[in-house]
Amino acid sequence: MMRQFHQSRVGWRPILFLTVAIWLVWNGAVLAADSALEPLPDSLQVTVDTMWVLLCAALVFFMNAGFAMLETGFCQSKNAVNVLTKNLIVFGVVSLCFWAVGFAIMFGDGNSVVGYSGFFLRGLDLSPLTGDRYSGVFSSLAWAGIPLDAKFFFQLVFAGAAATIVSGAVAERISFFAFFTFSAILSLVIYPVVGHWVWGGGFLQSMGFWDFAGSTVVHSVGGWSALTGAWMLGPRSGRYGQGAQGTIPGHNLAIATLGGLILWFGWFGFNAGSSMAADPAAASRIILTTNLAASTGAVAAAIVSWLVTSKPDLGMIINGALAGLVSITAGCAYVAPTSAIIIGFIGGMFAVFAANLFNQWHIDDPVGALPVHLVGGIWGTLAVGLFSTGPGINPWHTELSGPALGTLTGGNIQPILIQLMGVAIVAVFVGLSSLLTWFVLQLMFGLRVSHHAESVGLDLSEHGLEAYPDFSQRSLVSNSFLPSITSNPVQPTALTSEK
Amino acid sequence: MMRQFHQSRVGWRPILFLTVAIWLVWNGAVLAADSALEPLPDSLQVTVDTMWVLLCAALVFFMNAGFAMLETGFCQSKNAVNVLTKNLIVFGVVSLCFWAVGFAIMFGDGNSVVGYSGFFLRGLDLSPLTGDRYSGVFSSLAWAGIPLDAKFFFQLVFAGAAATIVSGAVAERISFFAFFTFSAILSLVIYPVVGHWVWGGGFLQSMGFWDFAGSTVVHSVGGWSALTGAWMLGPRSGRYGQGAQGTIPGHNLAIATLGGLILWFGWFGFNAGSSMAADPAAASRIILTTNLAASTGAVAAAIVSWLVTSKPDLGMIINGALAGLVSITAGCAYVAPTSAIIIGFIGGMFAVFAANLFNQWHIDDPVGALPVHLVGGIWGTLAVGLFSTGPGINPWHTELSGPALGTLTGGNIQPILIQLMGVAIVAVFVGLSSLLTWFVLQLMFGLRVSHHAESVGLDLSEHGLEAYPDFSQRSLVSNSFLPSITSNPVQPTALTSEK
Amino acid sequence: MMRQFHQSRVGWRPILFLTVAIWLVWNGAVLAADSALEPLPDSLQVTVDTMWVLLCAALVFFMNAGFAMLETGFCQSKNAVNVLTKNLIVFGVVSLCFWAVGFAIMFGDGNSVVGYSGFFLRGLDLSPLTGDRYSGVFSSLAWAGIPLDAKFFFQLVFAGAAATIVSGAVAERISFFAFFTFSAILSLVIYPVVGHWVWGGGFLQSMGFWDFAGSTVVHSVGGWSALTGAWMLGPRSGRYGQGAQGTIPGHNLAIATLGGLILWFGWFGFNAGSSMAADPAAASRIILTTNLAASTGAVAAAIVSWLVTSKPDLGMIINGALAGLVSITAGCAYVAPTSAIIIGFIGGMFAVFAANLFNQWHIDDPVGALPVHLVGGIWGTLAVGLFSTGPGINPWHTELSGPALGTLTGGNIQPILIQLMGVAIVAVFVGLSSLLTWFVLQLMFGLRVSHHAESVGLDLSEHGLEAYPDFSQRSLVSNSFLPSITSNPVQPTALTSEK
Repeated sequence: MMRQFHQSRVGWRPILFLTVAIWLVWNGAVLAADSALEPLPDSLQVTVDTMWVLLCAALVFFMNAGFAMLETGFCQSKNAVNVLTKNLIVFGVVSLCFWAVGFAIMFGDGNSVVGYSGFFLRGLDLSPLTGDRYSGVFSSLAWAGIPLDAKFFFQLVFAGAAATIVSGAVAERISFFAFFTFSAILSLVIYPVVGHWVWGGGFLQSMGFWDFAGSTVVHSVGGWSALTGAWMLGPRSGRYGQGAQGTIPGHNLAIATLGGLILWFGWFGFNAGSSMAADPAAASRIILTTNLAASTGAVAAAIVSWLVTSKPDLGMIINGALAGLVSITAGCAYVAPTSAIIIGFIGGMFAVFAANLFNQWHIDDPVGALPVHLVGGIWGTLAVGLFSTGPGINPWHTELSGPALGTLTGGNIQPILIQLMGVAIVAVFVGLSSLLTWFVLQLMFGLRVSHHAESVGLDLSEHGLEAYPDFSQRSLVSNSFLPSITSNPVQPTALTSEK
Repeated sequence: MMRQFHQSRVGWRPILFLTVAIWLVWNGAVLAADSALEPLPDSLQVTVDTMWVLLCAALVFFMNAGFAMLETGFCQSKNAVNVLTKNLIVFGVVSLCFWAVGFAIMFGDGNSVVGYSGFFLRGLDLSPLTGDRYSGVFSSLAWAGIPLDAKFFFQLVFAGAAATIVSGAVAERISFFAFFTFSAILSLVIYPVVGHWVWGGGFLQSMGFWDFAGSTVVHSVGGWSALTGAWMLGPRSGRYGQGAQGTIPGHNLAIATLGGLILWFGWFGFNAGSSMAADPAAASRIILTTNLAASTGAVAAAIVSWLVTSKPDLGMIINGALAGLVSITAGCAYVAPTSAIIIGFIGGMFAVFAANLFNQWHIDDPVGALPVHLVGGIWGTLAVGLFSTGPGINPWHTELSGPALGTLTGGNIQPILIQLMGVAIVAVFVGLSSLLTWFVLQLMFGLRVSHHAESVGLDLSEHGLEAYPDFSQRSLVSNSFLPSITSNPVQPTALTSEK
Repeated sequence: MMRQFHQSRVGWRPILFLTVAIWLVWNGAVLAADSALEPLPDSLQVTVDTMWVLLCAALVFFMNAGFAMLETGFCQSKNAVNVLTKNLIVFGVVSLCFWAVGFAIMFGDGNSVVGYSGFFLRGLDLSPLTGDRYSGVFSSLAWAGIPLDAKFFFQLVFAGAAATIVSGAVAERISFFAFFTFSAILSLVIYPVVGHWVWGGGFLQSMGFWDFAGSTVVHSVGGWSALTGAWMLGPRSGRYGQGAQGTIPGHNLAIATLGGLILWFGWFGFNAGSSMAADPAAASRIILTTNLAASTGAVAAAIVSWLVTSKPDLGMIINGALAGLVSITAGCAYVAPTSAIIIGFIGGMFAVFAANLFNQWHIDDPVGALPVHLVGGIWGTLAVGLFSTGPGINPWHTELSGPALGTLTGGNIQPILIQLMGVAIVAVFVGLSSLLTWFVLQLMFGLRVSHHAESVGLDLSEHGLEAYPDFSQRSLVSNSFLPSITSNPVQPTALTSEK
């Protein structure tokens, strides 16, 4: 009887989604036949551009696996199913929300604040015709000579990345439903609005703010949402304060490292696909700068953690590489390789220091999403203003397609100021809108699982599953009937390497 | 002495393979020098088409890793080595069998039932010349303007997928040798024969049956073979009947999720490469429909499992996404995006319900291969007949290259009937031929490991290895000397989320 | 106080790196603006070639994840963090070293022994102009019509692979700092020098030694360095001699298998990208031969291990597939598919036998890097001399672009002798130079961790972390307080399969 009641109480939430789904289905059945494409211009360049963008998009899609492994590995085993489920379902939710609404807000014709054309990917669009030959409701993407479906898919996987960033910072204590709903709102409204400002013909784009592949649009947006979420939720039980045992170690560093390497791999598509064209010189340079920044990020984190703790810390090195990648994302097409080395190195160092800072502020971020995506995203965006080579050096970087000479490379203060302004505006908007969203969700459904559920683990409480049912858990063994094993048997300070 | 005897008794089986291998080697040495290629037509289009198909094929190859992780994660840890070994070796076996024989049966010139030209990839073939300019023994692929080696490799990775599907359903109780041999026969004969009917110029193709990327050819063929195998083998001990404890949980949901995401990633190559050409509009649309169906499949499974059990079930969500992918495979190039949403949603729902149905029938399928590949494959094939936009809407879909307007989209009953007929004919052929194969293997070698071997686990009994030798197994601990831990300590009904 | 002292004692090592990093940063700031590219020739062929090479390079980059999973899975769980950290940081180190110095030594203009132009990727380079139109300091790559950045990135990921090969053989006992430094020296000097001889216009290239994708340049170089390292370090405690319990089993065969499949996947890019151009016929053939060799390598290892131990051994099958891949790497573009089958089969067999041989010699190689990369690399290099189809059979294989007809295929003894000579010269150079490097590192810092650190595991001693802190370790449980579980509870000889 209780079980029955429990089911019906929980049940109305999914019903909301089912209703939406049924409406989509109906809409689909009615409109199924009118999605005719204009014939393509007979051009192999369109083919090559499209294949490049689709393959890059597939690599970015694969970053979902990277995030899933990274975040799961950095969390506790008792929450692994929950983290995995969130990382899997979020892309499904974003796919539908961004297709129905988000893409129209981000790239659809509208005003300088918001787009409002092309919902459900409908309306006239003569892609892959470009420039003056283009006609349609997605004018802001008229420069890209590939079919609309390809433009959409490339942008979709970016939206997915933004939503996934949030997942890590709120892990191990957020309710599944709250995360599910926040992801939907992020991809329906918050992310597309910022995207419209920067990439969709909005006011930041008009003011000369540049973000090539999304240090701000993707990573900072995800990062600010993650920060407000982590702050609203509060830290995990036992993380800070009395009785806290320092860090709560991740349960599987093998899959976390795998996740980091998958992300590095996918980032080549993330950055080099962002030209939405197959430009050999640009793509080669972007991959070079991207890889150099990732490498110096990893090395910087290794060195800093080595100097500070006398041990090279694997988690820091993974996040250092990722911070290097986030940092170069905004400027990968606009800066010299040597600048990429500086940018990545500083990004990697910042990641280590920022992790400590957030801990001092008791902002609990189980996977390090904030030092990597928020701090790295801000730094990377500013770095464009500092290090841009300016137009005329590289053939793909003209006055129309990239930023002016940077403040450090050219001695002009304006570029860094414009980038700073963009960072601040996005911070205010995403900070407030995500805070409002979390607040409403808090009021309506509650954000956080119960203390008991958190203690037992979200896998059992939210999913009724264990990730690794065949293996003995150390804490389970120790807590239940083997008191002689401490729950934290590792005492690294007692061990020194006698290399 | 016993050990000696045991070795020699087992030894003759591998000797069979060694003999085949030696023959291949001899054949190779004699013919090594005659594999000259005709000079290519001087066309960049051939280059672009070939690069696209090869990259898509590489993605499909990577699905082997996806299947390996998915199936292993969904099985028990005591059988992990066995599942991994099967998934690894099966592609090696299929590579050799499909190269030597299967490809000739599937695409070689012959009659409307079977091909019988081009064994060992030999014989005249003027690819990448197409149409009238083509001359050679693989006329059924003369439409594709890429080198024969590329055509073969793309088709090979498809054959590998079909064989791997079987692996999951028969896991945790089949003998390694029986699986090894069945895979060989599947890729030598069963799969190629069906493939010939649908894609190799056979009678189903002539009758207007359409399956763009293999809902029937790959997934249903794998699915029917899996069904007969699972049925012949019977369920795992303790799965059903007296004393059964409900489901046998998978031992590692992290790698299972990774596997699911790798499969989703690889599916972009599976579907978008199936045009065997780089058509930008078609590829973009295919990737869009593929991703929408996967997304709605995942969301549908989440909703249904949430409604039914009040918990979103990770395993169901993974399989829901995969079912959405299987469902859209036949129609990805022929249906509208909104139809893809419907198709994927229904595929995801079917996956959840079908899993229950197979359990009620006591067909034991440890990884859910049947709900995903068999049911999804049938549904996806029928969906082409229901939702096809018909020729003339999209430039790549002409009367010669795709199905007529569907039964739902056009109100004509014929398309669904033709698809139904194809499904039925394949069901009968694959059902009977795989049943016969399993039966002969049963008689000659036995299909199933001993009860003792199954109880100990196939890793120790069949391979003498453990997958995770450093970790304490829960059941080992509990069964041997720690009776106070129950073997199934999870009691989800006692735990509720107080979100 | 001790802690303080300890920190400062260790600290000077990282300071060395920090100094280098700061110098790089300074160098970058000064030179940031002068990296202008010449305008590209207006050619879609350049675009297609570049996209192909970049995508192949990305696949090769992904092999880092493959190596990381393979090596970690084959090691003990107490050393997992260490292996993961090494595999992650090594690519960062190599990226910087090869960019600053290695690439200039390998491909920069110089003499027949060493290049000495183009450090930090600087100096004139008119790529993608080719042949006579090319002018610049990297003449040895003037044949490739892609931008310099793309050439560099493709070569960089190869250098990374060579360094990673060493990682596995020296695992579980090398100090982190010694490995870190050796990797730097390998990518700064040793690897580039050999590369210059074979691919950079050096004397082996002039003498008609052929190695298409690096059986010698990458795999043997890595292999010889690994051999000297493993020999200098000596075996792991308890591996051989009194009280040794046979093999030390790998702790996670699921991720090891994943690693093997990722490597197989990445190898398509490794071999098919090595033409540094998008040649459809060549790429298709290369992927065909590569896959056939991998398949027969896996099948050969399965058969041999089945015949020898009556069990198909998963570790052997993984390494058999990899040995097949290494074996075909030198000849993938030069041999017939049937020859690829022979080459891969023999490579797979050799891998099993060589593993036993190294064990008899008490060369401890935890992951099998020597049988795969050293033995496979030698065999593959020789196989070019035996099986080459010679120029004129395939359009991409002319007298200038590939080896003469092989000794077996053509009856001429010279080709195998030239290949043998190259193998011997590389063996002597890499053997001596790596031995010297290890020796100096031994003297200056020590190569090996303390016995206590090795016993505790490198994760705690070198990193202060555990890879899987939530799980009970079998040995921990048994050694501490549960004496009734043996530390090696698996007794495979007592279990037989009654299939």
